[in-house]
Amino acid sequence: MSKDISNAVIRRMPRYYRYLGDLLEKGIERISSNDLSALMNVTASQIRQDLNNFGGFGQQGYGYNVKSLHKTIGTILGLDITHHVVILGAGNLGRALANFVQFERRGFKVVGLFDVNPELKGRSVRNVKIMMIDEFDGFVKENKVDIAAFTMPRDKAQLMVDKVVSLKIPAIWNFANMELSLPDDVIVENVHLSDSLMQLSYDLAKRNEK
Amino acid sequence: MSKDISNAVIRRMPRYYRYLGDLLEKGIERISSNDLSALMNVTASQIRQDLNNFGGFGQQGYGYNVKSLHKTIGTILGLDITHHVVILGAGNLGRALANFVQFERRGFKVVGLFDVNPELKGRSVRNVKIMMIDEFDGFVKENKVDIAAFTMPRDKAQLMVDKVVSLKIPAIWNFANMELSLPDDVIVENVHLSDSLMQLSYDLAKRNEK
Repeated sequence: MSKDISNAVIRRMPRYYRYLGDLLEKGIERISSNDLSALMNVTASQIRQDLNNFGGFGQQGYGYNVKSLHKTIGTILGLDITHHVVILGAGNLGRALANFVQFERRGFKVVGLFDVNPELKGRSVRNVKIMMIDEFDGFVKENKVDIAAFTMPRDKAQLMVDKVVSLKIPAIWNFANMELSLPDDVIVENVHLSDSLMQLSYDLAKRNEK
Repeated sequence: MSKDISNAVIRRMPRYYRYLGDLLEKGIERISSNDLSALMNVTASQIRQDLNNFGGFGQQGYGYNVKSLHKTIGTILGLDITHHVVILGAGNLGRALANFVQFERRGFKVVGLFDVNPELKGRSVRNVKIMMIDEFDGFVKENKVDIAAFTMPRDKAQLMVDKVVSLKIPAIWNFANMELSLPDDVIVENVHLSDSLMQLSYDLAKRNEK
């Protein structure tokens, strides 16, 4: 990319990508910024501004070409590159992630699933074998790993951070429900389910006040 | 509450609550906005501004009283009220949610787990029995239900929206990885895991460019 795009704009791109993907599935070939605006509940001017960052694909009187816009945003998001994921913690959440079909659609591949529970050893989820955590170092040395998903219990998370950092895995997808202390060059994407719950709680409390 | 607090401020409250909870666990009784700023990676002036919305508990030279601030934010977020949750879809993700210990800490209680798979009938997750979806209407009529968690496959989601709306369940916690079409008075909190994946993908692509 020739110019830097602000983080705020990037944060909104996955949502555009999702909506455009839905339109594509429905066979819709083009859409005006006004229609996209109504669909996504964002102002048309915000949409035009956001998409102009990528060279302005919209044409007066025609709108956006859904397929080419979808493809361009996909490329910007790096979805044409395959990323290898290991899942650390093969409990329900880890297994739910391993089964997450969106992985493949977004260019992600689960290459390993690790746990400490010997009962799980050798079992498979979607053709990925569950390995024991003491096999982790060896595995990472022999396989390309881009992302470690943290689905282990919270009290094991910081310990695994140190391991991930020493093994030079570049990114963490964190479900451990805590902030991780990390060097600046490790990418982290937090999924704080408890924050989401608290927002729900607030909205319900607010509603009941009325 | 006597005054309306902006959505942007509310969105940040769960994070404050989480950090303050961690400090409490460590036995820390008070903290300055500067120390909280360094910890949370937010400017001290933002912190002061945000917390002033709730009456400004900070005192010059003393800082914030962690316990009382934590409690006040908890009350604002409605965490002292018990919310009843049903989980629709007892696959791995549904079971992971049923096992989610944060539920109890935030005042949420899983009261029912539903699925269409007859093999799951009668099985339990954390003392909550899995029921069949045809028992759902009757269950909601006899039990208070505040939130329906959507952990079913994407193609079943919109159908369940209609049911939830007709049963007057006030809120949906949506993991179905799609936007739901909803009446305005239904509260929805989306957890878009695929958006989070795309952000990771972007960050990795960006890193590799360097």
